[in-house]
Amino acid sequence: MTEKKLIMVPGPTNVPDRVMKAMTKPMIDHRGPAFKAMFDSITENAKYAFQTRNDVYVLTVSGTGGLECVVGNAISPGDKVIVPVFGLFSGRAKEAVARRGGRVVELQSTWGTAPTASQIREAVEGEKDVKAVFVVYNETSTGVTVRELPEIGEITRENSLLLIVDAVSNLGGDDLPVDKWGVDIGVTASQKCLACPPGLSLFSVSPKAWEAIEKVEKPFYFDMVEMREFTKKKETPFTPALPLFYALDEALKMVREEGLENRIRRHRTCSEAFYAAVEALGLSPLPDKNVRSNTVIAFNKPEGVDNAKVRKTMDEQYNVVISPGAGKLKDAIFRIGCMGIISETETLQTIDALENALADQGYKFKKDSGLKAAHERFRKN
Amino acid sequence: MTEKKLIMVPGPTNVPDRVMKAMTKPMIDHRGPAFKAMFDSITENAKYAFQTRNDVYVLTVSGTGGLECVVGNAISPGDKVIVPVFGLFSGRAKEAVARRGGRVVELQSTWGTAPTASQIREAVEGEKDVKAVFVVYNETSTGVTVRELPEIGEITRENSLLLIVDAVSNLGGDDLPVDKWGVDIGVTASQKCLACPPGLSLFSVSPKAWEAIEKVEKPFYFDMVEMREFTKKKETPFTPALPLFYALDEALKMVREEGLENRIRRHRTCSEAFYAAVEALGLSPLPDKNVRSNTVIAFNKPEGVDNAKVRKTMDEQYNVVISPGAGKLKDAIFRIGCMGIISETETLQTIDALENALADQGYKFKKDSGLKAAHERFRKN
Repeated sequence: MTEKKLIMVPGPTNVPDRVMKAMTKPMIDHRGPAFKAMFDSITENAKYAFQTRNDVYVLTVSGTGGLECVVGNAISPGDKVIVPVFGLFSGRAKEAVARRGGRVVELQSTWGTAPTASQIREAVEGEKDVKAVFVVYNETSTGVTVRELPEIGEITRENSLLLIVDAVSNLGGDDLPVDKWGVDIGVTASQKCLACPPGLSLFSVSPKAWEAIEKVEKPFYFDMVEMREFTKKKETPFTPALPLFYALDEALKMVREEGLENRIRRHRTCSEAFYAAVEALGLSPLPDKNVRSNTVIAFNKPEGVDNAKVRKTMDEQYNVVISPGAGKLKDAIFRIGCMGIISETETLQTIDALENALADQGYKFKKDSGLKAAHERFRKN
Repeated sequence: MTEKKLIMVPGPTNVPDRVMKAMTKPMIDHRGPAFKAMFDSITENAKYAFQTRNDVYVLTVSGTGGLECVVGNAISPGDKVIVPVFGLFSGRAKEAVARRGGRVVELQSTWGTAPTASQIREAVEGEKDVKAVFVVYNETSTGVTVRELPEIGEITRENSLLLIVDAVSNLGGDDLPVDKWGVDIGVTASQKCLACPPGLSLFSVSPKAWEAIEKVEKPFYFDMVEMREFTKKKETPFTPALPLFYALDEALKMVREEGLENRIRRHRTCSEAFYAAVEALGLSPLPDKNVRSNTVIAFNKPEGVDNAKVRKTMDEQYNVVISPGAGKLKDAIFRIGCMGIISETETLQTIDALENALADQGYKFKKDSGLKAAHERFRKN
């Protein structure tokens, strides 16, 4: 039994030693030259990860804080925003807009399904004075990815609407070419596919987004125009979380060294191995095949099995931590984070622990069938 | 020459190895049992540091973010708030209230002086419908501490007003008995006198503050009622910056081990040694004696000396980093952070570097007089 837990929840995820070690670099003056050098390095590599020539910012705040920040800057009270809601985090997106005083046009879909481009088009055409469309690209609560995001980007471009994208749980693990797809504001967080500890949010801002932001009365800590001003000096307006900036710098260097394409392919391969294993075990992934996430594997709990007990066995006997569902699907599904350092090793260790824990609960399946199916997927490479 | 820089800016400050090491603990599930245990430990020791039986919260955000959070929760648009402004950070307090839509009653004092209780009393009596008084206890930009805060607390208590206190740069290094002085919301940050890296803000909330907060329409990430709800489960609403929570847990344990009284005395002694040295060198502290800070030493730059060059020599030749002024006093003063791990060693090393750098600039003073004066102060203990 290894002592270190394998954290397979959908974030925070396992962090490479290189990144952990970077956090212990000594404190520096965040208004001095050493910080400016790191600022450059982070900015350049963050743009690479976002596939953008637009501005990218890093803020000391969790992913949800990043979303509150972009909403507070891009949306004024009274602005109309289309928000597809198909899980807990897209529900949070709606809530953030509503708390800001925005008028939400909510497009509901069943949890486990994805909103479609035609739904968005219909809403855009049916509504007057829409300012923005806010899409959660990867719904962490259901393991669903909005695969029609490129088409949605065409619609927002055609109609001169802002496209705000929450890519908290898949940027770096799935494709999000911000410029190509016309994403005006893309948001992610440090602790998911970038394999960095939690505490930072990153977001990209297009010229079109800046035009809107400049007209909005902004909050204080979250004022993006101030961030833009301080960026000219290679500083942040307020004290940055230095150890996390060190860690992010290292984590982004690792993204660059691996190459984004390779990194996305690695996430995709591991996720396909997970889905193959889940199906071989006679279990069903929550989402349909065409909208399944690369980074969050959600599947239905079989009848007669106790969700908490399965996870307890995996944790205590096999040192693998996975998650239940979130919100209304809490007991109904399991969720596995397929993020960051994920490779064949972690994938197989997790499936092995899952098989053993399910067997303990009396669930019937062909022994080793999950492992075998995952193995086969890896051998295809 | 030692390789490691001594960071003597007014935060972030030097962090003990024990605290740095804590950051490299492996990632955990922030909804799991290991986090709950740490949550208990942090909460208990934070209450000790705040000298309060009220609730204390920790948020992933810088100190300014913490201020924005408490303002967003305690103040509604239209609420009248008295804000003494006597430096850059009290100016920020005013700005945060104004951005929230609050009506600011600004009490201006010259930079380097402190607002008095009688000024506050006059404003309270002269204005109708005041909801809160927002005082920056330690003005980091000028090295001034509001020594009449206990009397201000009596005024707000008598008049049933909320007392919001920014103690970002001195909690843990100076006295702030939150309950005794009637502080309704006290805010600090991790990277100052608690000797932890930056990235977290801590705040206390009194029952009177809760009554006000419950009536305010709140932002989303910053919703304190949500924080209170999640605290019942020993969790934070959104993903916490785990490594910084580990670090804060360790840093607060160190506060407890040393004892708050001892810790405050240590800060006071070192600050008195600094002031003695500054005066012995023929330089003048910016604030009058009765409002000088324990934690930020601000003193006027002598004529004929270049601010940037003095600091460059201290940094490059002696590995000691201090700060210039902030805002309109940028070139006119120097600022030294007297925070966290500060002891006789760091104090003398800083004074030595300062003496040498001033001598390089042709400034005339009695050699070693600063060191001697500081030494004498330490020998008095």
